Amino acid sequence: MSALPVDRPVLGDLHPLDADPVFALHRGGKMEIAPTVPLNGPDDLSLSYTPGVARVCTAIAADRALFDDYTWAARAVAVVTDGTAVLGLGNIGPHAAMPVMEGKAVLFKRFGGVDAVPICLDTTDPAEIVDTVVRLAPSFGGINLEDISAPRCFGIEAELAARLEMPVFHDDQHGTAIVALAALRNAARLSGRRLADLRVVVSGAGAAGVAVTKMLLTAGIGEIAVADSRGMIHAGRDDLSAVKQELAENTNRLGLTGPIGTALAGADVFIGLSAGRIEEPDIARMAPGCFIFAMANPEPEVDPRIAARYASVVATGRSDYPNQINNVLAFPGVFRGALDVRARAITAGMKLAAADALADLAAEDLRPDRVIPSPFDERVGPAVARAVATAARIEGVART
Amino acid sequence: MSALPVDRPVLGDLHPLDADPVFALHRGGKMEIAPTVPLNGPDDLSLSYTPGVARVCTAIAADRALFDDYTWAARAVAVVTDGTAVLGLGNIGPHAAMPVMEGKAVLFKRFGGVDAVPICLDTTDPAEIVDTVVRLAPSFGGINLEDISAPRCFGIEAELAARLEMPVFHDDQHGTAIVALAALRNAARLSGRRLADLRVVVSGAGAAGVAVTKMLLTAGIGEIAVADSRGMIHAGRDDLSAVKQELAENTNRLGLTGPIGTALAGADVFIGLSAGRIEEPDIARMAPGCFIFAMANPEPEVDPRIAARYASVVATGRSDYPNQINNVLAFPGVFRGALDVRARAITAGMKLAAADALADLAAEDLRPDRVIPSPFDERVGPAVARAVATAARIEGVART
Repeated sequence: MSALPVDRPVLGDLHPLDADPVFALHRGGKMEIAPTVPLNGPDDLSLSYTPGVARVCTAIAADRALFDDYTWAARAVAVVTDGTAVLGLGNIGPHAAMPVMEGKAVLFKRFGGVDAVPICLDTTDPAEIVDTVVRLAPSFGGINLEDISAPRCFGIEAELAARLEMPVFHDDQHGTAIVALAALRNAARLSGRRLADLRVVVSGAGAAGVAVTKMLLTAGIGEIAVADSRGMIHAGRDDLSAVKQELAENTNRLGLTGPIGTALAGADVFIGLSAGRIEEPDIARMAPGCFIFAMANPEPEVDPRIAARYASVVATGRSDYPNQINNVLAFPGVFRGALDVRARAITAGMKLAAADALADLAAEDLRPDRVIPSPFDERVGPAVARAVATAARIEGVART
Repeated sequence: MSALPVDRPVLGDLHPLDADPVFALHRGGKMEIAPTVPLNGPDDLSLSYTPGVARVCTAIAADRALFDDYTWAARAVAVVTDGTAVLGLGNIGPHAAMPVMEGKAVLFKRFGGVDAVPICLDTTDPAEIVDTVVRLAPSFGGINLEDISAPRCFGIEAELAARLEMPVFHDDQHGTAIVALAALRNAARLSGRRLADLRVVVSGAGAAGVAVTKMLLTAGIGEIAVADSRGMIHAGRDDLSAVKQELAENTNRLGLTGPIGTALAGADVFIGLSAGRIEEPDIARMAPGCFIFAMANPEPEVDPRIAARYASVVATGRSDYPNQINNVLAFPGVFRGALDVRARAITAGMKLAAADALADLAAEDLRPDRVIPSPFDERVGPAVARAVATAARIEGVART
C-alpha cells in the first residue's frame, strides 16, 4: 500500500540456471507480504501499532471471538509439508519442497483470495508434525496439509482434525477427490447414467487413491475396487496395511483378485492415481463408453491417445490434454468457503458440495472434452466457496 | 500482481467496536500475501507451478544453497511469540498477541523491505518453543523473537541461536539495546564526553534491562549498575536468579546497595526499562548535565517535564515526546542486512554496528531533542542494513 523506502532484497549474482525461464521466474521467490494499512507517519503507527494496538489485544484477550474480526490470521492458511512426497519427486526434504508450497500459496490467493503461508517442517515424525502444527494453530485460520507421504498423512490429518477446531484438509487426498468426483458426475451425465450404475477400478492406494475411493463411496458409486502395486485389494490378502485393510472391507464387493488388468474387464471407469502403466489390451476390455481418468504426472497411466480409442471421456492430470483434474479447482474455494463461515472442520458434506458446485459449472456447456471447468473460469472459486459455506451451515460446523 | 477474481474476504457484520478508528483499521487484519509472479493463464501456471516448479525443487534438493536464490523463505522472517509479555499487557496468550505481531510484520516490510510472518505459539514451555521453532526453521531465513517473558526469553534465544544457522534476534532485548546505545552515544557526543566517562544506573532487569546493560558493557561504558524491584543488584544479594547473578558479577563495581534512588546520586545516566516510578528528589541528585532515558510505556519512569529540569538530554519510549527510543529504528534494518548477506547469526559486532549507524545518521544535525533519527527518515533502514551486512562480513558470519 505505502511505497517501500527500501529496494527489493539483494538477490545476489545471477546464477547460470537463470538462463532457464522457470528459474528466472523463481529467483527471489514468488510471493511477498503486503501491508493493508497506511504506514506513512507517526499517527499511522499509533493506530496500527503502539499505543492503539493494545486496545485490540485487550479486547481479544477478553473475547476470543474478536480474533476472527481483527486479525489477518483468522483467514490465513498454513500450507504444511514435511517434504516427504513432493509432486512425483518423492522425499526431497523441506527446503526443496518450498517452491511447491510457495506455488500453492500464490494459487490460494489468485483463485480464492486466501492468504496462505508455506510452512516446511524439519521433521518427518508424525507425532512431532502434529504437535508442531497444534502449537502453530493460533497463527492461522486453517491448515492445508500438502505432499506428506502415505500412510503417515492419514493419521496426521485425523489427529489434527480431532485436536483443532478449524478446517484441516490434506489437499493431495481431498482436493483430488473433489475434482475427480466432479468430472465423474459430468461424464455420467453425458452418458445418461447414474453413479450407482458405474463399476470403478482405482489404481493406487496412496493418499489420493484412498481419498477418491472413500469419496466415491460416500457419493453412492455402484461398485468400486482398488489396486495397489501387488494387484487388487481384497479381504483375502494378508499383506495389507491398516488403511488398505479398511479399503478391503469397504470395497471390491465382487471379490476381484489378481492384477488390475483382469479387474478392468467390463469396468465402466478407470481412475489412475499411481505411476503404474496400463497397456492397451487391458483398456480394450473395458465396457463400451467407459471413462478413463489417468492422472499420474507427468506420464499418465494410459496414453491419452490410446485411451481415446476406447473411452467416451478421457481425463488426465496434465494441462496439455483436455479435462485436467487439477486440484486448483478445489482447494482455494474450499478454504475460502470454510473460512468465511469460520467452520470448525471440513466435513464430507462440504467436500461433496464442492464437487457438485464444480460439476454444475461445467454442466452448463458439457462436452466429452470439457467435463470440468477451466481453473481460469473466474466463477469457480466463488461457486465452490458458496457451496462449501452453505454445506458447513447445514452440517452445523459453521460459527457464523 | 494479477487482479483477484474474488472479493475481499467476508468480514462479517460490523461490530460496535468499529466505531473506534483503531478497531476499524484492524478489521480483517493489517496484511496480506501478494503473489509476485503472473498467474493469468495455463502458461503462467506451468512455469510457477507444475510441471516447471519440479525443476527448481530438484535443483534445491541437489544443492541446498539454491534455496536462498529461488524461494521467498530465505529472506522471510518469523515473528515468534508465546504471548507471555505483550507490550505492557503481560501474559495475554497467543491469540490476543496477534495484532502486535501483525503490526511488527508490517513494520518489517515498511521500514526494511523484509517479509515477516506472525507466528503465535500455543505453548509457553521453553523446550517446546525451541523445538517448534527449530522444526519451522526451513520455512524462514531468520527468527525474530517477540514479547516472550523474562527470564525464559534468554534461554530460548540462546538455545535457538545454538541450534540454527540463521539470524535469531529477540527484539525486546536487542532492538531496545541498539537504539538506546545510539541515543546514548549522541548524548555523550553533545556533551563532549566518552562512554567510558559515564556512570549509568539501569532500572529493570528484564529482557530489555539485561540486554541494554550487556550492550553498554560491550560498548565500553564507564560504570553501570542495575536495579530490580528490590533495589540495586550486587553480589551480596542471595535472592538473584541466574541471569541477575551474572549481572551482579559483571556490573556495579562500586558496590551500590539499597534502593535505586541512592544509586542515582551523582550518576550521569538513568535508563528506565521497568514500570517503577522515580521521584523528583532522586533525579535532582544526579550529576549536572545528566541524561535521562525513561522508556516505560505508557507512563515513563520519570515525567519528561520534570526530567527536563535536571537532564541535558531526555528520551522516552513515546512518540509524543522528543527522542523516542523506538525499536523500529533497528529491527527492520538489522534483519535486512543479515538476510542480504545470508548471515549465520547476529553477533554483538553486528548489533554495535547498527547502533553506530543510527547514531551517525542523527549526528549530522545533533540537538538535545534529536539524538536519534526519526523512523520516517528513509535513510534509516538502508543505513542500518549496510552497517549490519558489513559487520557480518567482518565477523565471518556472512555466507555471501
